[in-house]
Amino acid sequence: MSLDSSSESFVFQKIGEVHSPFPSKFGVPRQPNLTPSIVTKIKFKDDFRIQTALKGMEAFSHIWVIFVFHKHGAKDWKATVRPPRLGGSQKMGSLASRSPHRPNPIGMSVFPVLAWNFEAKGGVEVSLEGGDLVNGTPVLDVKPYISYTDSVEEASLGWAQKPIEKFEVRFADGVGENFKSLLSSLPQYGVESFDSLREQISEVLSLDPRPAFQKTKNALSESSNEGRVYGFDLGAFDVHYRLSQGAFEVFEIVLKDESFGPVKSK
Amino acid sequence: MSLDSSSESFVFQKIGEVHSPFPSKFGVPRQPNLTPSIVTKIKFKDDFRIQTALKGMEAFSHIWVIFVFHKHGAKDWKATVRPPRLGGSQKMGSLASRSPHRPNPIGMSVFPVLAWNFEAKGGVEVSLEGGDLVNGTPVLDVKPYISYTDSVEEASLGWAQKPIEKFEVRFADGVGENFKSLLSSLPQYGVESFDSLREQISEVLSLDPRPAFQKTKNALSESSNEGRVYGFDLGAFDVHYRLSQGAFEVFEIVLKDESFGPVKSK
Repeated sequence: MSLDSSSESFVFQKIGEVHSPFPSKFGVPRQPNLTPSIVTKIKFKDDFRIQTALKGMEAFSHIWVIFVFHKHGAKDWKATVRPPRLGGSQKMGSLASRSPHRPNPIGMSVFPVLAWNFEAKGGVEVSLEGGDLVNGTPVLDVKPYISYTDSVEEASLGWAQKPIEKFEVRFADGVGENFKSLLSSLPQYGVESFDSLREQISEVLSLDPRPAFQKTKNALSESSNEGRVYGFDLGAFDVHYRLSQGAFEVFEIVLKDESFGPVKSK
Repeated sequence: MSLDSSSESFVFQKIGEVHSPFPSKFGVPRQPNLTPSIVTKIKFKDDFRIQTALKGMEAFSHIWVIFVFHKHGAKDWKATVRPPRLGGSQKMGSLASRSPHRPNPIGMSVFPVLAWNFEAKGGVEVSLEGGDLVNGTPVLDVKPYISYTDSVEEASLGWAQKPIEKFEVRFADGVGENFKSLLSSLPQYGVESFDSLREQISEVLSLDPRPAFQKTKNALSESSNEGRVYGFDLGAFDVHYRLSQGAFEVFEIVLKDESFGPVKSK
């Protein structure tokens, strides 16, 4: 392909798809490295040339994933956004943020690689540590992370300097009891053990996955919001929690989507 | 836009265009940070919404540029490439490299920002330090560089560990004399001074901009190649050099393309 530089638009093909425990954009962490116990998988197209093009990737510890924000929920792009990090009160240019609401909804995230499976049925699979991607996210490109070109530790951070706030997460007595009969079948939903599920829930919940307007309107610190109930989806499960003495308290975990499991071969 | 996750292809619009001193892919450095005296400019579309979307970017020291490899010179993508860093002799999967020859020709580079000009006629302009982009490269996205998500200093580098070799560059006596009459008009071709041009030439030439087959066939270290002559384009100029005692010696600089100058407003 030798494109005319006067071309105004460009067409790209999906080379793979994300399998993650986030069925929708709600609750998805803003960065992959905030939830290290989450596993993100990419299932590449069942295409011999793609398989060949990936050879050599297994030697790199970290990779870039270039993807499409396919479920950002807006019809048009936005010129300004209200970054959650600024409390949702200040406007910022969308290109001056990492928001999905940008002229071209292209995203990029760096992930530590857990394992490559070149022999997987139905196409090469890679497991990545952490996750900020919605299940089904189309992948356009992967690139090796090369620290001498990609790493700028001293970069100054503009408005993004404010540290991320983490909230306390507790589990009410007896959580787990409520789905006792399921505990032994957790692996079929892509979860190793109840401890692993607890860890994943804690990581996601500590970041306050509530929509921005809820965070503002129903601040965790306000005692008048005590006991308010919310839920979020994580893989096959619906996690119910309440605001409790300045922390999030999980009181119930319900199996919601039995079709949601580990990446399956075709 | 809420795309069906079953979509196989995605269309993106150009939001701006690169202005750089590299008229073609020949001689373009493999990383932006190897040629810090080169200035890369992006001229954004003359569109009020794009201008608004960029507000806030001026607070970040570094930005990502997501672009299209529009002149990689191949009709189809390649499953394997021969990375120059491996001497052009070993094959590697194209996705396991940063080569332009990949399923979707999307590139990304991080640049230190020199200056934003929001008042520029014909659209916002940004000047960036360094350059690995061909003039006319279509830009799809820019993002703030955020070190706590993007910087992984300790990433292990697979096959890309080999350090980049830099070669000695000399200037023959009287270089500059040959275009004496032009020296005073250098700024109109986007170059501050002759010293600045020398520095740019040195940086590009020290990386050996010759095509891979020339590097292998006519190694700089071979005395039988003494005196062999080459040229490369840098902005408005054609730089002529020869192999000389294990170094590159520039012996002539010719004005080639008078239309090549600093970014002009429409």
